[in-house]
Amino acid sequence: MQRRLLQTTAFSLLKRSRGVSSIRLNILPVAKYSTTKSVPLTADTYSKKIQRDPKYKQLEASDLEFFKSVLPENAIITDEDDLLFYNEDWMRKYRGQSKLVLKPKTTEEVAKILKYCNDNKLAVVPQGGNTGLVGGSNPVFDEIIISLSSMNKIRSFDPVSGILKADAGVILETADQYLAEQGYIFPLDLGAKGSCHIGGNVACNAGGLRLLRYGSLHGSVLGLEAVLPDGTIYNSMHSLRKDNTGYDLKQLFIGSEGTLGIITGVSILCPSRPQAQNVAFLAVSSYEAVQKVFVQARKELQEILSAFEFMDNTSQKLTAKHLGLEHPIESGDFPFYVLIETSGSSKEHDDEKLETFLGNAMEEGLVEDGIIAQDEAQIQSLWSWRESIPEASTIGGGVYKYDVSIPLADLYGLVEDVNVRLSEAGIASLDDESKPVLAALGYGHIGDGNLHLNVSVRKYSPEVESVLEPFVYEWISAKHGSISAEHGLGFQKKNYIGYSKNDIEIKLIKEIKNHYDPNGIMNPYKYI
Amino acid sequence: MQRRLLQTTAFSLLKRSRGVSSIRLNILPVAKYSTTKSVPLTADTYSKKIQRDPKYKQLEASDLEFFKSVLPENAIITDEDDLLFYNEDWMRKYRGQSKLVLKPKTTEEVAKILKYCNDNKLAVVPQGGNTGLVGGSNPVFDEIIISLSSMNKIRSFDPVSGILKADAGVILETADQYLAEQGYIFPLDLGAKGSCHIGGNVACNAGGLRLLRYGSLHGSVLGLEAVLPDGTIYNSMHSLRKDNTGYDLKQLFIGSEGTLGIITGVSILCPSRPQAQNVAFLAVSSYEAVQKVFVQARKELQEILSAFEFMDNTSQKLTAKHLGLEHPIESGDFPFYVLIETSGSSKEHDDEKLETFLGNAMEEGLVEDGIIAQDEAQIQSLWSWRESIPEASTIGGGVYKYDVSIPLADLYGLVEDVNVRLSEAGIASLDDESKPVLAALGYGHIGDGNLHLNVSVRKYSPEVESVLEPFVYEWISAKHGSISAEHGLGFQKKNYIGYSKNDIEIKLIKEIKNHYDPNGIMNPYKYI
Repeated sequence: MQRRLLQTTAFSLLKRSRGVSSIRLNILPVAKYSTTKSVPLTADTYSKKIQRDPKYKQLEASDLEFFKSVLPENAIITDEDDLLFYNEDWMRKYRGQSKLVLKPKTTEEVAKILKYCNDNKLAVVPQGGNTGLVGGSNPVFDEIIISLSSMNKIRSFDPVSGILKADAGVILETADQYLAEQGYIFPLDLGAKGSCHIGGNVACNAGGLRLLRYGSLHGSVLGLEAVLPDGTIYNSMHSLRKDNTGYDLKQLFIGSEGTLGIITGVSILCPSRPQAQNVAFLAVSSYEAVQKVFVQARKELQEILSAFEFMDNTSQKLTAKHLGLEHPIESGDFPFYVLIETSGSSKEHDDEKLETFLGNAMEEGLVEDGIIAQDEAQIQSLWSWRESIPEASTIGGGVYKYDVSIPLADLYGLVEDVNVRLSEAGIASLDDESKPVLAALGYGHIGDGNLHLNVSVRKYSPEVESVLEPFVYEWISAKHGSISAEHGLGFQKKNYIGYSKNDIEIKLIKEIKNHYDPNGIMNPYKYI
Repeated sequence: MQRRLLQTTAFSLLKRSRGVSSIRLNILPVAKYSTTKSVPLTADTYSKKIQRDPKYKQLEASDLEFFKSVLPENAIITDEDDLLFYNEDWMRKYRGQSKLVLKPKTTEEVAKILKYCNDNKLAVVPQGGNTGLVGGSNPVFDEIIISLSSMNKIRSFDPVSGILKADAGVILETADQYLAEQGYIFPLDLGAKGSCHIGGNVACNAGGLRLLRYGSLHGSVLGLEAVLPDGTIYNSMHSLRKDNTGYDLKQLFIGSEGTLGIITGVSILCPSRPQAQNVAFLAVSSYEAVQKVFVQARKELQEILSAFEFMDNTSQKLTAKHLGLEHPIESGDFPFYVLIETSGSSKEHDDEKLETFLGNAMEEGLVEDGIIAQDEAQIQSLWSWRESIPEASTIGGGVYKYDVSIPLADLYGLVEDVNVRLSEAGIASLDDESKPVLAALGYGHIGDGNLHLNVSVRKYSPEVESVLEPFVYEWISAKHGSISAEHGLGFQKKNYIGYSKNDIEIKLIKEIKNHYDPNGIMNPYKYI
């Protein structure tokens, strides 16, 4: 009885979505993300904060000669136009001045390159798919870019244990498609899956959409191969779920953002691919209700809950404009929306659990309206209202992105307080094009306590930046949050780690950096 | 139809189990585990291999004076009889000669103690519940024992996020019972839960019975507090599921076995407690069939599969003798047995999944006979046939324990080959009491590729040891396995890490040890 009511009245079926193309950020065309014609040099934008360190050697003809002895011609890029793709980030916020990109095909080539650079104090930037959000994979000055894009082979897969071994430069989506054929799933998913590399994912400890279900990479990565700055090949490509023989050093590389060495291979435990999937999209009237729905979902959906994402009203307004579509929830404008995904082994059981849960949530008044996707196309379509937000946030010209962890109760308060602050500064308006800022909006992985605060702007400016920073970081610090949940420190947050880590933690981190990279050639001017 | 058939004919219900007391190794009374009256000193047993390092200072009256200034009288143990409990391991294989046990109550006290020991080159052994299996928590010579048993407070629990913060000395079962009251579960379970400490679990990266479902501690531990050898308090007790700000240094302490510092606090993510649980106990005719049942179970039970344990025939024979009970599978003697546990949010759904899976497995001839527990008492009773094996293995007087990871296909081959070797040496017999060895038996966490090889002996002897070692380690190394899956290196495997790690890995591990503990005062003569 209850279930029928739910399907036919309160929950309207998503009927028009078949016409909506599946919009996933699989490829990130640079031009789409900014109206700025030319990206200013990072060195110019931040000239007051940072200078090139003269301890690093400048690239000379003799260096190029050496690299030519290691790599074939087509693995060496020196043409200025070709370099641009590697020098710039996809948000078009940072631009480096590297004169050289190297694209090794083997671990041994990486080792020879790094040893030479270390011996000669040539600074380097490791680069994966160049999809980062904090300027971590682009040079700041003239660092040599080492791109892993030519190291893109699946090495092996064991269908009994589910352990995949692959080169670092394998694209995430490629790995996941390969696994799908074997009945397995990559334990990580994120918007940039069509471009990002699994090695880059590990180097940045990417979180993404499946963390709620499959846990962090610190748990699922079983082995790594990495090249240390002095050219040492650290071969630790184990394929054992349990191995207590010595310190788990590979953990240091997970999240090190290319500052300790270059990850060249990954061994990772992959779960069985769920046979059934459901997606529900709900309208919720307050942030308090969002939290209650989450607690209830974790209890009632438990083992089948695979994503719990929330989005605020502004994020959906901009996304509707960006997609040129009407919002899937037609019955009105709601302060918050929630996307719930379930994954399990029995469609029938999952349907029943989800419907019971939604029925209860509506009866208790936690959910105002909602939709359940009826097929794969509708699933993709509903997800696009969550996954298109980063793109939609740049609709005015650019976006300041903050990716933070905050205890759940306080999480959305940051978005509210930033909007108050922008309003007090008189610099924000959704309609008035003379204002530099459109609005601050919030969305993210509630299940992980992870908020994405996007400040959508018409242009990047020091004025806006000074309104936002250090305000945002101070706010997070006061709530004992993290200033970087999953995006990393990179260039953007190098100076702000003190808001999330205490002096002793920072001291110990710096000691490790110095221990492995005493010459400081690995990804300088960043991280710490 | 199929389900009825299954319940009434092939699957006989476990009727008599109500009379069986639940036997879990909650408390590990020392006397029960060995018939040896007095445990020989480790220093004597291994006198040819290891000598006291003269660089360590011997305890003097002035040192005691200092400790008395830090701790109250009842936190200092010097009485020889009282020291015995801390000097010996529970298997009664190792005995140290410490003259002093310190039981600090606060992190600051630990810091003062360690700083003093480091300044004075007094070697120390951190000790949790003293339930280890490799002699890692007992002194080898006269090291000072620092017991965490008085640091046993739950610090906080957040019922929205499921994050528990607690002192290192909280007993695992106490933590789990506390969580049960809140609807949560500790993401780790093991036989010694009634005695072991959560800090010790983290220090040893314990795996246990729930790893298959909840993953490793590298994924679930969110923060740690630890004291470094120089007395520095590393406070990294974060409670954020995602935090990418700097190297994840806490990971180094997970599995460091007290060689880098002393863990004093743990912050850990706890899952919702499953509302439904099932346990099935199956008879299987070959090791090949065991593997097939596993692959099938992972596919069909997927998100509700929480344990998949296997046991060989010998392990069950000894357990029957030890428990004084008939085996739950009455229809005959089978080469292998499998215990499957499911945990989920709907009893009805889980029952249906489990019964369908078992029906298929029997139809395909993979399973010969089986039982499904009908209530909590039967669940406990079936588990006791798995959990009593370690105890049952010592029925003759002692046991050589090997805890290893081996790729699944080869896993049981080790037990077979060890039995062949023992037989060729003419030293094994289940009945002939003049032989030093009863038999080699195997069981463990198939789901994690983790075998426990137990060699049940009537007495420990160098002769038996020389038949077993390095044979076992060489065998594992040839299969690219790990010589320590979850028990750690401790004293037992200090010299064998080379069978599982390459020279560069070992060099890097040694460098980290030296980096944090240059005086080598932390748990010497062990690990690496």
